[in-house]
Amino acid sequence: MAVHNFNAGPAVLPQAVLERAQAELCDYQGRGMSILEMSHRSKQYEAVNTSAETRFKALLGLGDDYRVLLLQGGASSQFALIALNFLAPGTVADYVLTGAWGEKALEEAKRIGQTNVAATTAEGGYRTVPARADLHLSDQPAYVHITSNETIQGVQWADLPDVGALPLIADMSSDILARPFDATKFALIYAGAQKNIGPAGVTAVIIRQSFLDRARTDQPAIFSYKTHAKNNSLYNTPPVFAVYMLDLVLGWIEGLGGLPAIAERNTRKAALIYGAIDQSGGFYQGHAAPASRSQMNVTFRLPNEALEKQFVAEAQAQSMVGLAGHRSVGGVRASLYNALEETSCVALAAFMAEFARKQG
Amino acid sequence: MAVHNFNAGPAVLPQAVLERAQAELCDYQGRGMSILEMSHRSKQYEAVNTSAETRFKALLGLGDDYRVLLLQGGASSQFALIALNFLAPGTVADYVLTGAWGEKALEEAKRIGQTNVAATTAEGGYRTVPARADLHLSDQPAYVHITSNETIQGVQWADLPDVGALPLIADMSSDILARPFDATKFALIYAGAQKNIGPAGVTAVIIRQSFLDRARTDQPAIFSYKTHAKNNSLYNTPPVFAVYMLDLVLGWIEGLGGLPAIAERNTRKAALIYGAIDQSGGFYQGHAAPASRSQMNVTFRLPNEALEKQFVAEAQAQSMVGLAGHRSVGGVRASLYNALEETSCVALAAFMAEFARKQG
Repeated sequence: MAVHNFNAGPAVLPQAVLERAQAELCDYQGRGMSILEMSHRSKQYEAVNTSAETRFKALLGLGDDYRVLLLQGGASSQFALIALNFLAPGTVADYVLTGAWGEKALEEAKRIGQTNVAATTAEGGYRTVPARADLHLSDQPAYVHITSNETIQGVQWADLPDVGALPLIADMSSDILARPFDATKFALIYAGAQKNIGPAGVTAVIIRQSFLDRARTDQPAIFSYKTHAKNNSLYNTPPVFAVYMLDLVLGWIEGLGGLPAIAERNTRKAALIYGAIDQSGGFYQGHAAPASRSQMNVTFRLPNEALEKQFVAEAQAQSMVGLAGHRSVGGVRASLYNALEETSCVALAAFMAEFARKQG
Repeated sequence: MAVHNFNAGPAVLPQAVLERAQAELCDYQGRGMSILEMSHRSKQYEAVNTSAETRFKALLGLGDDYRVLLLQGGASSQFALIALNFLAPGTVADYVLTGAWGEKALEEAKRIGQTNVAATTAEGGYRTVPARADLHLSDQPAYVHITSNETIQGVQWADLPDVGALPLIADMSSDILARPFDATKFALIYAGAQKNIGPAGVTAVIIRQSFLDRARTDQPAIFSYKTHAKNNSLYNTPPVFAVYMLDLVLGWIEGLGGLPAIAERNTRKAALIYGAIDQSGGFYQGHAAPASRSQMNVTFRLPNEALEKQFVAEAQAQSMVGLAGHRSVGGVRASLYNALEETSCVALAAFMAEFARKQG
């Protein structure tokens, strides 16, 4: 029986995508072999690679002045690559911290160059995002880095910040393609696929051509965005299956109606769970301040840890899995990524109401 | 209809492994979800990760003094990571070049530190490996790097070189687990999975603990072997599906009887194709000198390019795919990795004899 999968990543995938991958796993398009057994230089795989890039740009409304690179290594590798490519000696990069992932991005950059914390909401345990007026940007920073959604704290930028002509970089690993936004405001967006857009093993890097032109080239070739752009993400053997799955998920998002449709769906889903929190009379305490609540990761506490454990265990017994909070913060976390069906949120909201009633 | 898959990588996978992956793609071990949808911190995935490491060490006969890391980025990433971790300022690394991949490894290392070409067989177009006496090693190099099998030229070390107490590093991407060898002679072995042991997207790094202890730690955390070792390859989200497939392939090799059994099979397969070359009365010209012939990639020329094109096309019409030589060198290449069945080599050898006869 299928479960309600609230995993924080790797996470739920569209059932239709899984079924298609299963159907053609041993024989791709009648070629007598698996997509896994094909050369990455084959017409079949090049079509997958091109389709994924084309769909990505179409969904984001981006034109020829942007490139989409499909790389290995996860967002954690991008933490280092961004600094290696763009944080030259004598320059400084601004980091805005709204949770644990922003901290990690900063830590890696500090090993490579000079950084500045332009703002942090660590005080109070990362419950908000800063106001634009509270960003203390450097004079001509190499870039400004934000994390659009923090999975561990469950904090999301409702409105992405405007930094004018400065190069804005966002780690969107946990909310990429979950809602419409103006992607042209960004010099670079990156996202590990395993939350909203595919399986683990591939990372999308969306980069403005004019920003790419400024990347350093004195690094090892494999760390250079220019290398990967010049080779259409085929400089070395790509993670074929992950890219193939990514492309199928992008097609599924298109089929739903693109970002406006998926955003409506995501908004309804999040409203169900935040509704259950807000209607619990204080039994459930949301972590994020309401204006910074994440639509992707709903984080909350119960009156004590024993009840939290009981909650997670009873939910699991009712086929709702992945609800334990991140080991670093505890509590409960429900991740509601793109592929999670609304029925799963209905089930969880009902369970939350019933659980609170029984304890009350 | 299944084809005879001579692709150079990504390459043929064991049919039994593909069928098992297909059967459980939508529901892994009755958990109501795909392995692709599970947390990398779940018991299920941790079991896969542990199994892959355990099987790898058992097949290589390695004990607790070695670690197996399962990373992203391909062998091309290791070209840089090896130098970042082990080529400190003031030291020099020795590279032995027997083909195009060794050259690439050297190029990346040169961007990071000081290198020395201890030997190269480039003269004559990489047809041999050097004799031990022809390795001009530095005084106390940081490491000595070889490429055990060169896929483009089709040149393989029949006997892996002995460098005594110096740290020996091998790129074994294209012949890992294809034959027994004394892995304890190596400080570090690395291999992209997509030729002999799995799909693209995961790279194995087998490292001696005492060598790992010497790795630098002043690099970005994601580039540090110590980071990945300390976290059992779970520092960041691993490429779940690729590791899962790798583990299944390792189980398949075990089931065949391990490295001695797979080596016997690989020897028989290669003998069929080299036999067809040697019995063609000079119609087929093998690239490698006989003593350095690769059991994995058989490279040869026909009297002219037009015949080579015709050969590849006619073979394809008979369901033998992937036979075109690498675009950088041309000619014909038959890759005979672990998962290729002997029947495919029988078919190709027969086709080669018939093709030569018709032209003769």
